[in-house]
Amino acid sequence: MTNSIQNQILGVLGGGQLGRMLIQSAINYNQDIHILDPDPNAPCKDIAQRFQAGSLKDFDTVYSFGKGCDVITVEIEAVNTDALLKLADEGKKVFPQPPILKLIQDKREQKQFYQLHGIPTADFVLTENKADVISKKDFLPAVNKLGKEGYDGRGVQILRSEADLENAFDAPGLLEKFIDFDKEIAVTVARNENGELIAYPAVECAFHPTANLVEFLFAPAQISSEIEEKAQQIAKEVILKLDMVGILAVELFVTKSGEVLVNEIAPRPHNSGHHTIEANFTSQFEQHLRAVMNWPLGDPSLRCPAAMINLLGEDGFSGPVLVEGKEVALTEKGVYIHLYGKKLTKPFRKMGHVTILDENINALKSKAYRIKELIKIKSTL
Amino acid sequence: MTNSIQNQILGVLGGGQLGRMLIQSAINYNQDIHILDPDPNAPCKDIAQRFQAGSLKDFDTVYSFGKGCDVITVEIEAVNTDALLKLADEGKKVFPQPPILKLIQDKREQKQFYQLHGIPTADFVLTENKADVISKKDFLPAVNKLGKEGYDGRGVQILRSEADLENAFDAPGLLEKFIDFDKEIAVTVARNENGELIAYPAVECAFHPTANLVEFLFAPAQISSEIEEKAQQIAKEVILKLDMVGILAVELFVTKSGEVLVNEIAPRPHNSGHHTIEANFTSQFEQHLRAVMNWPLGDPSLRCPAAMINLLGEDGFSGPVLVEGKEVALTEKGVYIHLYGKKLTKPFRKMGHVTILDENINALKSKAYRIKELIKIKSTL
Repeated sequence: MTNSIQNQILGVLGGGQLGRMLIQSAINYNQDIHILDPDPNAPCKDIAQRFQAGSLKDFDTVYSFGKGCDVITVEIEAVNTDALLKLADEGKKVFPQPPILKLIQDKREQKQFYQLHGIPTADFVLTENKADVISKKDFLPAVNKLGKEGYDGRGVQILRSEADLENAFDAPGLLEKFIDFDKEIAVTVARNENGELIAYPAVECAFHPTANLVEFLFAPAQISSEIEEKAQQIAKEVILKLDMVGILAVELFVTKSGEVLVNEIAPRPHNSGHHTIEANFTSQFEQHLRAVMNWPLGDPSLRCPAAMINLLGEDGFSGPVLVEGKEVALTEKGVYIHLYGKKLTKPFRKMGHVTILDENINALKSKAYRIKELIKIKSTL
Repeated sequence: MTNSIQNQILGVLGGGQLGRMLIQSAINYNQDIHILDPDPNAPCKDIAQRFQAGSLKDFDTVYSFGKGCDVITVEIEAVNTDALLKLADEGKKVFPQPPILKLIQDKREQKQFYQLHGIPTADFVLTENKADVISKKDFLPAVNKLGKEGYDGRGVQILRSEADLENAFDAPGLLEKFIDFDKEIAVTVARNENGELIAYPAVECAFHPTANLVEFLFAPAQISSEIEEKAQQIAKEVILKLDMVGILAVELFVTKSGEVLVNEIAPRPHNSGHHTIEANFTSQFEQHLRAVMNWPLGDPSLRCPAAMINLLGEDGFSGPVLVEGKEVALTEKGVYIHLYGKKLTKPFRKMGHVTILDENINALKSKAYRIKELIKIKSTL
């Protein structure tokens, strides 16, 4: 099996920035990657061995794309799982496994999965429509989530008091007890077909106040070793209970009383792991590759404290991209700019990220805030 | 000028592993790269924004390729410099500048350049043909070099005694005093159009006994701070005297008496800088990109001690590549495999490299030797 690495084709559903960074890792291993994405100008277009524009939700498109691959993975959850199930039945390796993708596509099923397996998570009630949410107003303050189609902050809102109920989602969803958390952290775990399992050190996330996207990330998280251990154990338990192969990002709340609760999970490389490209021995992208190809897993440990900021399209700008402040940022030591090759910006679109390294945590934080103010994604229009 | 980074096309003459690793860096900046290479299956083929198969030595091919670019650089010196001169005359940015490439193409001119500028280098005499070499036998032991067309160890041989004279090159070349050196080291320097100039810490090279290719590289070099300082000064002097823009690898001898002498130079990313991808704050590939695009230069300092080994095709094997030992190597912490996407191996062909990181120098060396024995490039034939 010494030559297995070169000969198999890895198909990826989705050709955005996650696929792009996966390809950047795969180049080092001569690992050919085929990409399917609905956008003919997706970030992976120029660097995949094969790029096909097509729907990720259409059975026939996904099925016939998958037939040309040996191993199939995703960089987005919203894909046709029936086609993936059929491909898996026919002997293709599909990681994460299709039933897991189906579970992830529905936040209601996800929560019930945690409950069934005793995985700590915020209390919740299922809701069928707006009237049902209103009838459960005693559950407030709560987070109201849509069961399906939520992504990058869409389909999630906080209902603090009865006055907010008029915004309640009028479709199947849930109400989750509002957690007045101390910190939001994330632990990435990876598992291969041989059963090898590793966990990355926890990172700490700070979210954008309105866009509900990660705005700053710091690694390592400033938490006690007990909380770190608990968080890693929970993340490992989730991937084991899912019996999943691939990389899994587990976002967690640390409550003021020291509880650790699962918030959301993503069975793919995730925004909370972008810093690993420069900051860890093995990046989350290479780790995902190793996991789905059943290669030995790499060392997840941190080489250096790091911060990560997302470069989101500035509010008020749409059109061809103009990156402000990049030249000045390039003069700073330990600052790594990653642009995603998207031609058009729009408010809050993820256009890139920056990783910042510094052995000194305080210097790291101030550099991160400075870079955040410096680089702005605007438009030439 | 905040948007200058996206809008210019960088053309690269040569689409081998150096171009491939340059593209891997450029992806992070949305920097489009066009590649010209005679081999339609060159390592850059699948990942360049545009790939053209064609001769690097043909005036018209190089000229018309260059017309479609804004900035032009090389990853190999053996290119048509007349076409590059014309492109530069017509306003294209060509880095390294064509006269420097012309100088590098002829080892005789290179040595005379060092002499003219007082750059320390081994004593030499020019030779016109075999008879001329024989007539200068008093100069032995010496290194006999062909003036032109030498590459990767070809066109260089040691003439230790009169018995070796029958092998003397029968074409314009030179005899260089054989240096019984203590160490071979290399310093990479970079300079942009604004005049910014940086030097990487010196690395120590160990060459393959017969193939005359770098076999092991260690960073940092185990030398005194005086020698380090002297080597960096010399390397900076060379790039300044050349008035060159881009990255320049300067290979040097450290003699037993503590002299530092320039051996060879390469005005492009070089084998002696491959470790910088993982081991330094800014890799040589990103640094070259920054230099030729006139962006601010990045920090060259070392993040961690590193070793680098070349993966050369094993002697006795030709044909489709089979990489032995990779799976075991993947289990080691801080081991980074880079394969170059070449479909066919042949004896001593550069098929990839491995970078190894370890804070402990002794552990680093033993890991490097172990990995060297472990990974073998053979063929399926």
